[in-house]
Amino acid sequence: MAILERHDTGPVAHLRLNAPERLNPLSDAMLAALQEQIDALSQDQMIRAVVISGAGKVFCAGHDLREMQAGRQAEDKGAAYFADLFERCARVMTGLTRLPQPVIAQVHGIAAAAGCQLVASCDMAVATEDARFAVNGVNIGLFCSTPMVALTRNLPRKQAFEMLTTGRFVPAAEAQAMGLINRVVPEAELPAAAMALAESVAAKLPQAVKIGKEAFYAQAELPLDAAYALAGGVMVENMLEHDTDEGISAFLEKRKPDWSA
Amino acid sequence: MAILERHDTGPVAHLRLNAPERLNPLSDAMLAALQEQIDALSQDQMIRAVVISGAGKVFCAGHDLREMQAGRQAEDKGAAYFADLFERCARVMTGLTRLPQPVIAQVHGIAAAAGCQLVASCDMAVATEDARFAVNGVNIGLFCSTPMVALTRNLPRKQAFEMLTTGRFVPAAEAQAMGLINRVVPEAELPAAAMALAESVAAKLPQAVKIGKEAFYAQAELPLDAAYALAGGVMVENMLEHDTDEGISAFLEKRKPDWSA
Amino acid sequence: MAILERHDTGPVAHLRLNAPERLNPLSDAMLAALQEQIDALSQDQMIRAVVISGAGKVFCAGHDLREMQAGRQAEDKGAAYFADLFERCARVMTGLTRLPQPVIAQVHGIAAAAGCQLVASCDMAVATEDARFAVNGVNIGLFCSTPMVALTRNLPRKQAFEMLTTGRFVPAAEAQAMGLINRVVPEAELPAAAMALAESVAAKLPQAVKIGKEAFYAQAELPLDAAYALAGGVMVENMLEHDTDEGISAFLEKRKPDWSA
Repeated sequence: MAILERHDTGPVAHLRLNAPERLNPLSDAMLAALQEQIDALSQDQMIRAVVISGAGKVFCAGHDLREMQAGRQAEDKGAAYFADLFERCARVMTGLTRLPQPVIAQVHGIAAAAGCQLVASCDMAVATEDARFAVNGVNIGLFCSTPMVALTRNLPRKQAFEMLTTGRFVPAAEAQAMGLINRVVPEAELPAAAMALAESVAAKLPQAVKIGKEAFYAQAELPLDAAYALAGGVMVENMLEHDTDEGISAFLEKRKPDWSA
Repeated sequence: MAILERHDTGPVAHLRLNAPERLNPLSDAMLAALQEQIDALSQDQMIRAVVISGAGKVFCAGHDLREMQAGRQAEDKGAAYFADLFERCARVMTGLTRLPQPVIAQVHGIAAAAGCQLVASCDMAVATEDARFAVNGVNIGLFCSTPMVALTRNLPRKQAFEMLTTGRFVPAAEAQAMGLINRVVPEAELPAAAMALAESVAAKLPQAVKIGKEAFYAQAELPLDAAYALAGGVMVENMLEHDTDEGISAFLEKRKPDWSA
Repeated sequence: MAILERHDTGPVAHLRLNAPERLNPLSDAMLAALQEQIDALSQDQMIRAVVISGAGKVFCAGHDLREMQAGRQAEDKGAAYFADLFERCARVMTGLTRLPQPVIAQVHGIAAAAGCQLVASCDMAVATEDARFAVNGVNIGLFCSTPMVALTRNLPRKQAFEMLTTGRFVPAAEAQAMGLINRVVPEAELPAAAMALAESVAAKLPQAVKIGKEAFYAQAELPLDAAYALAGGVMVENMLEHDTDEGISAFLEKRKPDWSA
């Protein structure tokens, strides 16, 4: 049984964290499996949306603490291992942001510490009513500094600060109000809700979504005029796509676009 | 009948997009008319607030798709025309931000694509209860990359991403919760609500509002210390205005300021 | 009676603005007293959280307008004094952000102008149900440009713009929805609520909170990759703390950490 299961439904790839007895930790093996899928998906033109979920009782409880503690046996007390671990983890998180396909977190149970970072790093997120979110490393003396990078790019500042310094578990409805997730649904509807969102996105023109997602994160880091210069160039490129010509023509002629070509 | 009507009420200028049969698109003519008014308003010391509304059933449905498709006839398949179009559009949008007067969007019906960008580019926005907002270009294969620049400077990241990749029409109440608009009112109260907000702002000392609005957007792009250095300088300049001296004195003496001089 | 009272309860320092008859203005004396406490707290390893409250009917009404007007008597009409005043004020505000301890505003009555800036500059804030927040300098001709720097780093853009240009007093519940404060409680519960939040934070490992808070504000101003590089380094440093080793081990062994050493 793979530590990360992949199951495709048409143009939607499902990745399922699959170490349920250990609460799906982001172990070395899990991070490697995620990176492998990210590398494959980045080249995959058939897949148009990605859903990430967790097997068992929770979505993801964070890093693998036993593995991290074992790292202390090295001569440098783990310094090199820890640096490498957080770099590999950041590569996975930013890799999701850089995939051409939109990525949706499908969250149940708990998303804690680096598990909450995983939710924050996805482009969108759907959760069950009783799901809870925390960056709770501070409770055991390890401030969630890397999860903070993703979290603070989703939440208002004071709310993010409170989560990081108190370790409080935030219910789904509150997480939605804060901006961490897009939608809250009853538990039985979770897979269907995530799939509906994925299929909605997968039905769009892939080239348009791809250049749009890339521009989304690129322009967010730029001053206003530079952001417009970048986005304007993207719009021109988008307009010159044959399928966009067809999409606009079809709309004006009140018919469905023929994007099969 | 002008494509952009202007009607002033005391210190408040009303601009009304006026091509209702075509849903007030941001055509070449409309963009030119908006730019002309922006240029005039930027020099107009009598006008202290601007309201933008739309004639007919909707606020604004976005770019003029027929005009854009016609642009493809050129030898370069429209590349130069499109680049120029998005540059002119961005100049209008950032021009609103750079006007000395606060600008209020008065929204009914639909604000879609570049029409939603127009709302996001105004300093404030008031909408009817049944108004809806979308960046729906993705539905016809044209990702709303330039509207995204304005949208993402108003909304939390995940909510903006969802709007951009699903094209979903967001009801006014949800748009308010997300931060896209300031106030939602019954349809019959819309003009009065926009006017009340405009008059509230127009009653302030214009020099103070002008340097404050300019500093608002300038400091937003700076690191904390640089932002304080800029804002501190603005405060000193503001304090040295004669009318500010009078305003503070009047407050301390519990009388109305004499700002008529 | 000191203009700024300090009273410590275990690891929590309480600072109380104490010029109630004048609504606790940030006068020269008050700013100096705050700076003195900030300097002391920055070196104080026993204090793990700070609460700031106001004596009397309100939290803080802003700058001391009488003192500012008196500054106009100088030959330069106050230019040098005002520049120095806003610099001292900004040093206090950013000083709170740079303290190693989390700082919590405990707000009742009114937090106006620079008083609202003080709330926005604290890491977290708790308020009574009838507390109200405003950046209302615009009403007397002095746009709240320096309070704006702190405010806009807490609130969505359109909401911040409205507060700054209308001077409107925002009720606590709305301020919470906007992101300006973390919690709203009945008046009788205010001190206990602020203390509970302070004690929750004070119970964490101080070194972890200290490097976490510092990284929180540092990474917020960086692009994504640079933010991760910074945060990854902080995580390694945090992991190498002896007490963090103990904290994780205790968690894995289902016992309380021994952080007394």
